[in-house]
Amino acid sequence: MATVPIVSDERASARVRGIFDDIRETRGTDYINDFWRALANHPDELERLWAQLKTTMAPGALDPLTKELLYVAVSIANACAYCVHSHTAAARAKGMTDAQHGELLEVVAMAQRTNALVTALGVPVDAVFDRAPDGG
Amino acid sequence: MATVPIVSDERASARVRGIFDDIRETRGTDYINDFWRALANHPDELERLWAQLKTTMAPGALDPLTKELLYVAVSIANACAYCVHSHTAAARAKGMTDAQHGELLEVVAMAQRTNALVTALGVPVDAVFDRAPDGG
Amino acid sequence: MATVPIVSDERASARVRGIFDDIRETRGTDYINDFWRALANHPDELERLWAQLKTTMAPGALDPLTKELLYVAVSIANACAYCVHSHTAAARAKGMTDAQHGELLEVVAMAQRTNALVTALGVPVDAVFDRAPDGG
Amino acid sequence: MATVPIVSDERASARVRGIFDDIRETRGTDYINDFWRALANHPDELERLWAQLKTTMAPGALDPLTKELLYVAVSIANACAYCVHSHTAAARAKGMTDAQHGELLEVVAMAQRTNALVTALGVPVDAVFDRAPDGG
Amino acid sequence: MATVPIVSDERASARVRGIFDDIRETRGTDYINDFWRALANHPDELERLWAQLKTTMAPGALDPLTKELLYVAVSIANACAYCVHSHTAAARAKGMTDAQHGELLEVVAMAQRTNALVTALGVPVDAVFDRAPDGG
Amino acid sequence: MATVPIVSDERASARVRGIFDDIRETRGTDYINDFWRALANHPDELERLWAQLKTTMAPGALDPLTKELLYVAVSIANACAYCVHSHTAAARAKGMTDAQHGELLEVVAMAQRTNALVTALGVPVDAVFDRAPDGG
Repeated sequence: MATVPIVSDERASARVRGIFDDIRETRGTDYINDFWRALANHPDELERLWAQLKTTMAPGALDPLTKELLYVAVSIANACAYCVHSHTAAARAKGMTDAQHGELLEVVAMAQRTNALVTALGVPVDAVFDRAPDGG
Repeated sequence: MATVPIVSDERASARVRGIFDDIRETRGTDYINDFWRALANHPDELERLWAQLKTTMAPGALDPLTKELLYVAVSIANACAYCVHSHTAAARAKGMTDAQHGELLEVVAMAQRTNALVTALGVPVDAVFDRAPDGG
Repeated sequence: MATVPIVSDERASARVRGIFDDIRETRGTDYINDFWRALANHPDELERLWAQLKTTMAPGALDPLTKELLYVAVSIANACAYCVHSHTAAARAKGMTDAQHGELLEVVAMAQRTNALVTALGVPVDAVFDRAPDGG
Repeated sequence: MATVPIVSDERASARVRGIFDDIRETRGTDYINDFWRALANHPDELERLWAQLKTTMAPGALDPLTKELLYVAVSIANACAYCVHSHTAAARAKGMTDAQHGELLEVVAMAQRTNALVTALGVPVDAVFDRAPDGG
Repeated sequence: MATVPIVSDERASARVRGIFDDIRETRGTDYINDFWRALANHPDELERLWAQLKTTMAPGALDPLTKELLYVAVSIANACAYCVHSHTAAARAKGMTDAQHGELLEVVAMAQRTNALVTALGVPVDAVFDRAPDGG
Repeated sequence: MATVPIVSDERASARVRGIFDDIRETRGTDYINDFWRALANHPDELERLWAQLKTTMAPGALDPLTKELLYVAVSIANACAYCVHSHTAAARAKGMTDAQHGELLEVVAMAQRTNALVTALGVPVDAVFDRAPDGG
């Protein structure tokens, strides 16, 4: 199932094949997952997104594993099954242990629980949390 | 605004005051934010939630700052304004730098973007991401 | 704040005033909350929605309080602050006790928590839950 | 899979068959998709929803294709896989080109990204955006 | 598909088997659905969650069927397919009739509709809905 | 309120001021809304996002008003109050009439309603909607 054709290596244009090659080299695996093959129907978006993703997920003030855990957390909150599967696999490839996975699930489940309670109680934001007291 | 009264120290029962004292001691601050004061209308839930939250956010396989960043990420995805404010403040109290905050925003924004694209393309999960090939 | 003007009784057309009157009579209160006054900018949608809402929330196989609790639950899950406030007030007007409110919050918070875990684990639906084994 | 039986033409009541016939005629196709066959377990809701949907999606101040694109956008944001598939197909049937589909994805992905950033930054609404300065 | 292995009775530890036995006894069925078998990879979370769920869903100020309907409503709003299937089945096991199911769907669909309209109109919460006029 | 300071023209760096100037020129207004002033705490993200947004929202296969309507629709589905306000204002600036606004609300509300019903019924995607029958 998909709303667009899945682009195989054979059907890919030279431009798309070049991006696929960069995905393979960057990730150190020959496997291109179907998200990229579907996005390849829109080469501009494919190129832009992959370039940005490489920058976003590179080591910086946060390490790559922490970034990947954040990605999984957002994907869970968004109920995106594909995203949960692909980024959980990516987190494992970057060293996530079973214990870390367990704690990730626990933090996300706790956040879902308190997010709901906060909304249910309708409490306005405490003034002490404001970082823009003058101009905001 | 709130769907329940905000429980001040004066109006709190002895049981609730005891939990408030534990929140103060655990966090090293005299300030009790209004979420807890609102939840205090339901002392059982207050007690259970605070006890669980202390366990969930304690150092483990993931460090406390990483857990707090995950909390912020989920709160953003859930569009919970109060939660974003309170957990961003908590992350700063645990050492989050401005650069780390910037990268957190960037990863969350990227995850929102690709989550939407994945859903739009309707791609099924690649078999290679499955960890339960036999029984699941 | 609003993306449209709030329609006061004075500025309301005869058609809108008629719907406002019906809201007042049905609810047994003179107060028209601002959602209806904002929706009054689009009289067709106002008329259709109010007519449907009266039918939907009327006593049936489910009693009116249960229906209102369901409304609050969905509003919490959708992070709709206005909706949580207005339907929590409506539930109280229909007899919701503080104890029932507390249990509502607990069930919703639990559902948020297990919904997230289910998504995180990526488990497919068990065959025993299927009600359309032949044709679906 | 489904939480209710899928109603085939054979099992449909005369009332349901009449609605199915109207769906076929309105859409110019013999195919009734499974959403309607599942909803047919609740004939009142089926009748009401189909009547309303015909009105909502008819040409008006917005053309039918624009309406269908909006439908796809909301379905993506709601992570409703079935809805994304069925309304993307409907948009194509109404003339959506591949280029338009690509731009739709780009706008939705951008909206997801900035929605998250806005929530993360916690900025209150600028006064200039208010259309109800007096009464709201 | 799953992001973790599904734990069969044979592979379960004595601790996990003990929890499985309690699930069987509490529910009066031999069947353990795959959510619990997946969660069994994290025995601490399994134990904590099951213990809490039993308490949350027990008869109280709200009856068990009402609680289950609330669970289904939240699961629909969260677009959690597995949760919708498992809790719809649970609601039926607790006595939900087809007519009640139909009204549940109608209320949830109505709440989704008005939640969206409220957000679109951007109306602030009416002062009369506030329960914390002094301290909140 | 905000989780970061709001950057005034006076406090903006030369780089940020340059981007503010481009926003002013592109939009034909002197007003910079607070989202951009908050994002200015992270100049890299500000620069990247603004550059991308200009491209995304430019005339293409879809006209600028249609794109803005899609933006509003996603913002409603995400319950992002700020986004709804700012993009509804932007849509008006691009020519959205009151009648178009009304139909936009109606389509979004209808999509929310049927999205929920689809999820509640748990219907799998019809095979006829698949565009990747071979490779997906």
